[in-house]
Amino acid sequence: MVTEKIIHAIQDDYPSDFAWCFGCGRLNESGHHFRTTWDGNNTITTYIPNKEHTAIPGFVYGGLIASLIDCHGTGSASLALHRENGYEPGVGEEPPRFVTGSLQVDFLKPTPQDVPLVATGTIEKIHPKKWKVLTEVYADGVVSARGEVLAVIMPESFTRNK
Amino acid sequence: MVTEKIIHAIQDDYPSDFAWCFGCGRLNESGHHFRTTWDGNNTITTYIPNKEHTAIPGFVYGGLIASLIDCHGTGSASLALHRENGYEPGVGEEPPRFVTGSLQVDFLKPTPQDVPLVATGTIEKIHPKKWKVLTEVYADGVVSARGEVLAVIMPESFTRNK
Repeated sequence: MVTEKIIHAIQDDYPSDFAWCFGCGRLNESGHHFRTTWDGNNTITTYIPNKEHTAIPGFVYGGLIASLIDCHGTGSASLALHRENGYEPGVGEEPPRFVTGSLQVDFLKPTPQDVPLVATGTIEKIHPKKWKVLTEVYADGVVSARGEVLAVIMPESFTRNK
Repeated sequence: MVTEKIIHAIQDDYPSDFAWCFGCGRLNESGHHFRTTWDGNNTITTYIPNKEHTAIPGFVYGGLIASLIDCHGTGSASLALHRENGYEPGVGEEPPRFVTGSLQVDFLKPTPQDVPLVATGTIEKIHPKKWKVLTEVYADGVVSARGEVLAVIMPESFTRNK
């Protein structure tokens, strides 16, 4: 499992208009800045929750874990289609942007705070525009949550309306 | 549908040790402060996302919607068991605290920013310690997301470890 720093993340290359996501947008100053890349044929996102991301004191907030799985899922799908198109993150080519069709999270055990979280993803293409990403979230080497995201290529209805 | 301000929310009565949740803890200064109460036999949580809670500009971040459904689910289960025990929020009795076993969200359409969100819940007891909460999230009167939470009475493993 990759634990060193992620050098080239797919979110670094998202088009600027679509890089404002609270979870993974590099331009959202208040956001989490999740960053996702390849680990062989799987994908990986690492994150250290802040102190305030508490559920019950000592344990990480489930909504934060759901957010991590969500953006890890859309980022993983973007990586996969980008590679299918012949590109890797960091080569200076804008990747396709995905949105979340559905999100499922099973909380297997309490996730301890103050340790790095590692989300690992397995990607399956199920339709030219839809990818399924199965994710496991590790805290201190132990799987504490498991998730599934159906990621869909961003539809026209998501044009900038502000 | 209740749209006026929620006077007595179940989260107002959570025991202080368990009122630090980033989503719904009244003592977490950085959190969302989701507040949930009865609307007849259903439950309701209202929330106005902040500017930074963006997905694609103009639309609300899915992780925030998942967080709303998550805390609305545990809050709704707490309301239900509290009522079964003979209590309503605001009577000065500490309610039972639930955690999330699983969370499912279907994002039906983009959720517009700058409008209040209303989550409405239908509760089903499926086991003495487990309640299922079906939630619809309305933005400007339109359902944009649908969710299901399996809420479980907080197990012993969630004892304060800090």
